[in-house]
Amino acid sequence: MGLKTVEEYKQSLRDGRVVFYNGEKVEDVTTHPALQVGVGTASVDYAMAEMPEYEDLATVTDEKTGEPISRYYYTPKDTDDLLKRHELMVTGTRLGGNTVPFTKDIGADAMNAVSMTANMIGKKEYVERAENFRAHLQKNDLSMAGAMTDVKGNRVLRPSDEKQAHPDYYVRIVDRTKDGIIVRGAKAHITAAPYFNELLVMPCRNMTEADADYAVSFAIPANTKGVIQIAHPFAAHRDQADFPVDLPVRNHTDSMIIFDDVLVPWERVFLCGEWQFAMPLVYNFATLHRHTGCSYHIPMYETMVGVAQAIAEYNGIERAPHIRQEITDLVIQVQTLKSLSRASCLDYEIYGGIPIPNRTITNIAKYSYANNWHACVKIIQDIAGGLLVTAPTYRDWQNPKTKDFLDKYLGGKAGIPTEHRLRMLQMIRHMTRPEGEVVAIHAEGSLFAQRMTIYAEAMPSIQECKKQAEVLAGIQTDD
Amino acid sequence: MGLKTVEEYKQSLRDGRVVFYNGEKVEDVTTHPALQVGVGTASVDYAMAEMPEYEDLATVTDEKTGEPISRYYYTPKDTDDLLKRHELMVTGTRLGGNTVPFTKDIGADAMNAVSMTANMIGKKEYVERAENFRAHLQKNDLSMAGAMTDVKGNRVLRPSDEKQAHPDYYVRIVDRTKDGIIVRGAKAHITAAPYFNELLVMPCRNMTEADADYAVSFAIPANTKGVIQIAHPFAAHRDQADFPVDLPVRNHTDSMIIFDDVLVPWERVFLCGEWQFAMPLVYNFATLHRHTGCSYHIPMYETMVGVAQAIAEYNGIERAPHIRQEITDLVIQVQTLKSLSRASCLDYEIYGGIPIPNRTITNIAKYSYANNWHACVKIIQDIAGGLLVTAPTYRDWQNPKTKDFLDKYLGGKAGIPTEHRLRMLQMIRHMTRPEGEVVAIHAEGSLFAQRMTIYAEAMPSIQECKKQAEVLAGIQTDD
Amino acid sequence: MGLKTVEEYKQSLRDGRVVFYNGEKVEDVTTHPALQVGVGTASVDYAMAEMPEYEDLATVTDEKTGEPISRYYYTPKDTDDLLKRHELMVTGTRLGGNTVPFTKDIGADAMNAVSMTANMIGKKEYVERAENFRAHLQKNDLSMAGAMTDVKGNRVLRPSDEKQAHPDYYVRIVDRTKDGIIVRGAKAHITAAPYFNELLVMPCRNMTEADADYAVSFAIPANTKGVIQIAHPFAAHRDQADFPVDLPVRNHTDSMIIFDDVLVPWERVFLCGEWQFAMPLVYNFATLHRHTGCSYHIPMYETMVGVAQAIAEYNGIERAPHIRQEITDLVIQVQTLKSLSRASCLDYEIYGGIPIPNRTITNIAKYSYANNWHACVKIIQDIAGGLLVTAPTYRDWQNPKTKDFLDKYLGGKAGIPTEHRLRMLQMIRHMTRPEGEVVAIHAEGSLFAQRMTIYAEAMPSIQECKKQAEVLAGIQTDD
Amino acid sequence: MGLKTVEEYKQSLRDGRVVFYNGEKVEDVTTHPALQVGVGTASVDYAMAEMPEYEDLATVTDEKTGEPISRYYYTPKDTDDLLKRHELMVTGTRLGGNTVPFTKDIGADAMNAVSMTANMIGKKEYVERAENFRAHLQKNDLSMAGAMTDVKGNRVLRPSDEKQAHPDYYVRIVDRTKDGIIVRGAKAHITAAPYFNELLVMPCRNMTEADADYAVSFAIPANTKGVIQIAHPFAAHRDQADFPVDLPVRNHTDSMIIFDDVLVPWERVFLCGEWQFAMPLVYNFATLHRHTGCSYHIPMYETMVGVAQAIAEYNGIERAPHIRQEITDLVIQVQTLKSLSRASCLDYEIYGGIPIPNRTITNIAKYSYANNWHACVKIIQDIAGGLLVTAPTYRDWQNPKTKDFLDKYLGGKAGIPTEHRLRMLQMIRHMTRPEGEVVAIHAEGSLFAQRMTIYAEAMPSIQECKKQAEVLAGIQTDD
Repeated sequence: MGLKTVEEYKQSLRDGRVVFYNGEKVEDVTTHPALQVGVGTASVDYAMAEMPEYEDLATVTDEKTGEPISRYYYTPKDTDDLLKRHELMVTGTRLGGNTVPFTKDIGADAMNAVSMTANMIGKKEYVERAENFRAHLQKNDLSMAGAMTDVKGNRVLRPSDEKQAHPDYYVRIVDRTKDGIIVRGAKAHITAAPYFNELLVMPCRNMTEADADYAVSFAIPANTKGVIQIAHPFAAHRDQADFPVDLPVRNHTDSMIIFDDVLVPWERVFLCGEWQFAMPLVYNFATLHRHTGCSYHIPMYETMVGVAQAIAEYNGIERAPHIRQEITDLVIQVQTLKSLSRASCLDYEIYGGIPIPNRTITNIAKYSYANNWHACVKIIQDIAGGLLVTAPTYRDWQNPKTKDFLDKYLGGKAGIPTEHRLRMLQMIRHMTRPEGEVVAIHAEGSLFAQRMTIYAEAMPSIQECKKQAEVLAGIQTDD
Repeated sequence: MGLKTVEEYKQSLRDGRVVFYNGEKVEDVTTHPALQVGVGTASVDYAMAEMPEYEDLATVTDEKTGEPISRYYYTPKDTDDLLKRHELMVTGTRLGGNTVPFTKDIGADAMNAVSMTANMIGKKEYVERAENFRAHLQKNDLSMAGAMTDVKGNRVLRPSDEKQAHPDYYVRIVDRTKDGIIVRGAKAHITAAPYFNELLVMPCRNMTEADADYAVSFAIPANTKGVIQIAHPFAAHRDQADFPVDLPVRNHTDSMIIFDDVLVPWERVFLCGEWQFAMPLVYNFATLHRHTGCSYHIPMYETMVGVAQAIAEYNGIERAPHIRQEITDLVIQVQTLKSLSRASCLDYEIYGGIPIPNRTITNIAKYSYANNWHACVKIIQDIAGGLLVTAPTYRDWQNPKTKDFLDKYLGGKAGIPTEHRLRMLQMIRHMTRPEGEVVAIHAEGSLFAQRMTIYAEAMPSIQECKKQAEVLAGIQTDD
Repeated sequence: MGLKTVEEYKQSLRDGRVVFYNGEKVEDVTTHPALQVGVGTASVDYAMAEMPEYEDLATVTDEKTGEPISRYYYTPKDTDDLLKRHELMVTGTRLGGNTVPFTKDIGADAMNAVSMTANMIGKKEYVERAENFRAHLQKNDLSMAGAMTDVKGNRVLRPSDEKQAHPDYYVRIVDRTKDGIIVRGAKAHITAAPYFNELLVMPCRNMTEADADYAVSFAIPANTKGVIQIAHPFAAHRDQADFPVDLPVRNHTDSMIIFDDVLVPWERVFLCGEWQFAMPLVYNFATLHRHTGCSYHIPMYETMVGVAQAIAEYNGIERAPHIRQEITDLVIQVQTLKSLSRASCLDYEIYGGIPIPNRTITNIAKYSYANNWHACVKIIQDIAGGLLVTAPTYRDWQNPKTKDFLDKYLGGKAGIPTEHRLRMLQMIRHMTRPEGEVVAIHAEGSLFAQRMTIYAEAMPSIQECKKQAEVLAGIQTDD
Repeated sequence: MGLKTVEEYKQSLRDGRVVFYNGEKVEDVTTHPALQVGVGTASVDYAMAEMPEYEDLATVTDEKTGEPISRYYYTPKDTDDLLKRHELMVTGTRLGGNTVPFTKDIGADAMNAVSMTANMIGKKEYVERAENFRAHLQKNDLSMAGAMTDVKGNRVLRPSDEKQAHPDYYVRIVDRTKDGIIVRGAKAHITAAPYFNELLVMPCRNMTEADADYAVSFAIPANTKGVIQIAHPFAAHRDQADFPVDLPVRNHTDSMIIFDDVLVPWERVFLCGEWQFAMPLVYNFATLHRHTGCSYHIPMYETMVGVAQAIAEYNGIERAPHIRQEITDLVIQVQTLKSLSRASCLDYEIYGGIPIPNRTITNIAKYSYANNWHACVKIIQDIAGGLLVTAPTYRDWQNPKTKDFLDKYLGGKAGIPTEHRLRMLQMIRHMTRPEGEVVAIHAEGSLFAQRMTIYAEAMPSIQECKKQAEVLAGIQTDD
């Protein structure tokens, strides 16, 4: 085995998995008109590993076997590893035309979180299972989804709360057999899961003793019996009224994954009732995953800067003071995001023996891009002008009775072809879809989740600052 | 003649007008699959005038003829008239299912601006033409578009600047004949023009003497020879993957209007080279039009409050402190908008003998809803959760293989049917389209246009404040 | 009796009251070097009533006696009365050189709140006591403080909570006798109380049955036995290093009022254990008092606009785009505050038979000026430049060895005397003291108090909006 | 020679310099009641170098001489040097009780900027003069001010503009002699200059050819003939009404420095008419100086976090959701500032052969703390409560007639001594002085200066982003 080719990856998806899309069962995700776009987007990761200029970034030589493995499944050791992993995701996203391949990104975050948590629990079987599973991923170069978010029901109630309409709003263990555990429940928003090989399932919140059966983590192939995925429609095609662009469409969907009493063999079980470790597992994953979110949002924010400057120039307003202010705000945003992402690797923290980006800083970085997305969208729309919505379509451009009028009247600055302006407006229209807004604020955890984490993680340093303030105020305390 | 019925309005649109939609020429706007939705939305205004409960609000008895006329074409006299006009638009928007009919709103803003400017110019023929045209509108109860925004070319250059790629980026007089003037150019973003009777054209900026031929205002029927409209595709149909809603679809499109050397008879010309009055005309219209923008955004913002509270309750989080903070922010926004809109009628100003809402306050009101739209959208998306994007569709709901899973797992607070939650998410998805964002910040003038107007209009009071500050500082000046 | 002169007011303060100031007991507040500044500031109200041009604004003819009384103690009947009261406070503040006299403003808010609550309770004795006390105030034209805020102790605990260090953190009834009640506790931040005639005491929060002894409201003269006031030092003198200004210094201090087992006669008791009415009394007062806060902050914000424009001109930067943006932001702030204040009178509400400004809008108005104060201070400091802190003093100006250097080098725009620039900087330095910041956010209730009130008051309209949203979403509910 | 002791430093200031303070000439800055506080604050730097635990941070072994020199005057070579220099300033500020010693910080920024610019100009004599002057500073361990900001006059006019009231608003060369140049003008806001040894003067803006005489940089001892400093009063004493604190008062003043036709010998001239290099010199200094600003603001922001948490706990509200939100906002601010400051060292840039922190990121870091200062002050004031202004004084605390009342009634959470609460409020009152606000937004350049720099520095990357956006939009351009 070893690194997979794009073709091998596609072949691996024809495995009998159960996936529904817009009300219909999908026969083959690699040929389905919409889902094949997701498959193609994920393929960028495999393609990248085959490109000589990215070999160093995308792969690492396995210390034991001497074989090249994906950098994603390599366990980071220091700042440099963390920065390279970050750079790999940034670069992969750029190669994907501003869409992160996701092929192993979240999966690796989940694998690392499971390893860290296994070390923290300290049970030998968990440590071994994690190591074996990692070796399996490395050897077979597998794509993997990290499945965390439960459907939750009433969001303020605990999993085991009797006020919940039923006990299955969080994935739980309904039985334990000699072959493994039987799990039931559903995970929502699982990115790219319909076309990934493995699903690594984790709890999504802290648990109490009463919730012990909900403290469960495991990995299974996507074609496991009882696993049903319901994907939702996504922008997999260019609009027929759009100017054609000579680049493949890149995008992802996600799925709600139903676990309809699924058997998970013991060697794939990573948490099974140890409710005290649900929270550490969540935190370990969340930090890594939020750092991943930062990584793939950097190219997206850079493109915001780019379209803003482009359409400002096309409109002839790039020197207007208030436009320069707006572009400056975009620059501040993107540079702050990059600096926070990098500084979090400088000041890394170690949990379960594995270094991860600084938790407080990572959450601030994630919060930064999530909290400011709408404001940046607004800036771009402001610079673009109302034509963003009202511009006639490519069909009008093709109609000889209207083409000349459009070409004449929709010009901007002299020397810029009208078609360039219309194409840039079209691109902005696509970039500012509400999907982007919702992904920014909800993917990798809500705004409030980041704020809670920042507060909790920073509390020791807050108390240290308080101590110093008391000294300066001339207050003597016993502690 | 007199008040038109809905049917008479529709019949009036079958007049040979030239309209293109998504690359194809439209035979009959009242039967075209998409444009008929705009026609239906505009019809709400005619229907309202026929409903006894709205008769007082929608109509006024003409002082001369004793006949009922639309309140829109009635010239306001005082605060009460301005508040009633405001209330009429708020109410019409609610009746239109949160879409303003627009049938005469903008047209009346334009008619009033033309009347005011005619009085300010003081030329007898302009005053008479304005009066005659108003009587024509009253008598025939006509729908009318106000066409202001030129396509502009390089947006920082004046109309007559030689650096513009051609001289036709702003509508201009290319010839004067004994029958009238010949005009050429194009107006962009003209709301609902494809299905309105009259087009009232105005300049969109201040002019210098060199721009005199661009200082032109006139009204013509939409089927005038040489008038070509290119509309753009809009959300005229429910998505087939959506839960069906038992209400008509309400929405508008707009058009780019080409004036391909159009003859305008003298009695329909309201400005013809008096470049000094381009700016007053713009300002008169802009104030009224921005007040109209406030009027129809009030119900839209109220609905934001409503969906936020609804989905918070469905998700079980309506008592969470940060959610209450977000809903409070929405309430502050809607109440501030309402208070500014009403206060601007209290402190009205008179130009050309006609009272209009206070210019400074109106611009602040408009700026307020435009500047905060994205932030409010973000709040709603934050409360709704990621399911806003990832929720499976009505088609999955209809498929018996997935329906039960969806019903079970996508429930929120116990007692709220899952379908309610999915429907509310669907509604939020539609409300938070980027079209709404762009309309908020660009329709009725850009954010920067409001800021410039606020600064300019407030300058006398700023200087008054400066004077008082100098007194308090012990500074003696000569003036 | 009847309207008091300034001299009569001063005489009335020599009554044996117990006031401490900066560690020393005050013999006579009207001659104390600092407190006499507060007395002078309060006197502006009495002086205003004697000025013919303000007679109509400042006084009302009593319906029963035909005598003129202060408008403050007149019970408002409609929008016009509310707007006149608002105008009276705005004007009084301007006359006070941007400091509100406060002589009867807060006292009248408290009196009205007591009247409303008496009517809501419906007990005859409370209604009569309120009427009698109002007549007393009218007849003797008395200055009065409204004393609401308790010292609170642990701010998250109820008054009667045993975790409080002692039971006296909120003013409470410690005994009931035939002559009256005995009260103990302390009220903090009571503006101008050291030089006012009467103290009207109210609870500051909602109460439970356990807190019944804390549900107490009463009025007593400031020289009542057992009443001890501790005022704090305030800016009562111009700095000796300042350029002299030929206007009296106007400013207020406040006091912590200790009630050291004070006997209150029954006819002055307005609430005595009816814990259910603590909250309505708080809400009634808070609305009126917050509207008062809006009234006196309007001239303060106008002066912010004035100093910003003045120093921008003196520095030569008034045309710089970013400076115009900042001044526009100040204008938006002041006009929004004025519009909200006026709109709240338009949409007044009636409680206990007395109209008061709309609660939701008033709280938004108050929140608006409180929440934006720091941002406006920042704008002014930004425009003023670093010289705001580093400018040499009037003493350097007087020293012939440095005067000429200062005059030469600290000039700004040619034609503006250097002294004008230094005086304006001095004024800004005084305006941007942290006292102003803290008053803005804490006087009349904290930011969070306004937000809670807005949310609570708006809840019925929020639910109405929710209903409409459900209709538009196609959701049918039973209610 | 070599490292100076504190005493040697003080002795070196008794050199006949001309300093005025609040209208009077100062005989000896080291014994002047106010200025000796500044001297003491600056002494912290010399004291630090003598403390064994800081030896490695504060000093570097000179490569040539093998002698220890101050790290400040060591030329940085790489990221590690930049981070150490940053850490030195952070630590020095903490040792100074939250006040940066400033002894060589700004001087070293200026020295480095002069070295870089000399290398960029490439004239041998400038390079040698810079090297010699640096050796002089190292050898004599001198304190030095960087004097950049001119008094400017009309701030929108160039130095040589004839509309300026006189030609001396910017320091300029009025004569060139064989001994050196004669300079005239004044520099404002020069921190700590009254008690520093050397003054390094630089231009403060870009210059045109017409401004060549204003393109001048030089260094002179503070006691040079014709140099007159006018300092301004500062908070050099604890308020007598304050609780005493057993720590020395630490604070700085600054001065306006008059250059009254001062002779500067040629070996101390670093720029003399090369107007093209005025801007690079400004930019080189500004970047370093803004990074210094970040360094000393970090401990100040940390103290903000500390006082916020302390007073929240003392008030009993530290668990209230909105208080936690506010403290989270403070944490986000301080961590963002720290991360940007460190990331700017990671991504350093080289000019004139010397590495400096990344310009774009440094300016964003500086802007971040400057732009958010007021908002953070507001948070602290909000948490502290109104007692921040209204709390009685230490004098009341000492008066036995009021002490017990204060102790009883001003308690907060049970178990926290009242005096602790009053002390913390006192400290917050001092921290939130407007001086801090003005320093945050004006020291090291105004907010707008940072924004302009960010925009200018980022332009190459903006254009790169634009290019990529065009590729994604399917736009083919020639460049």
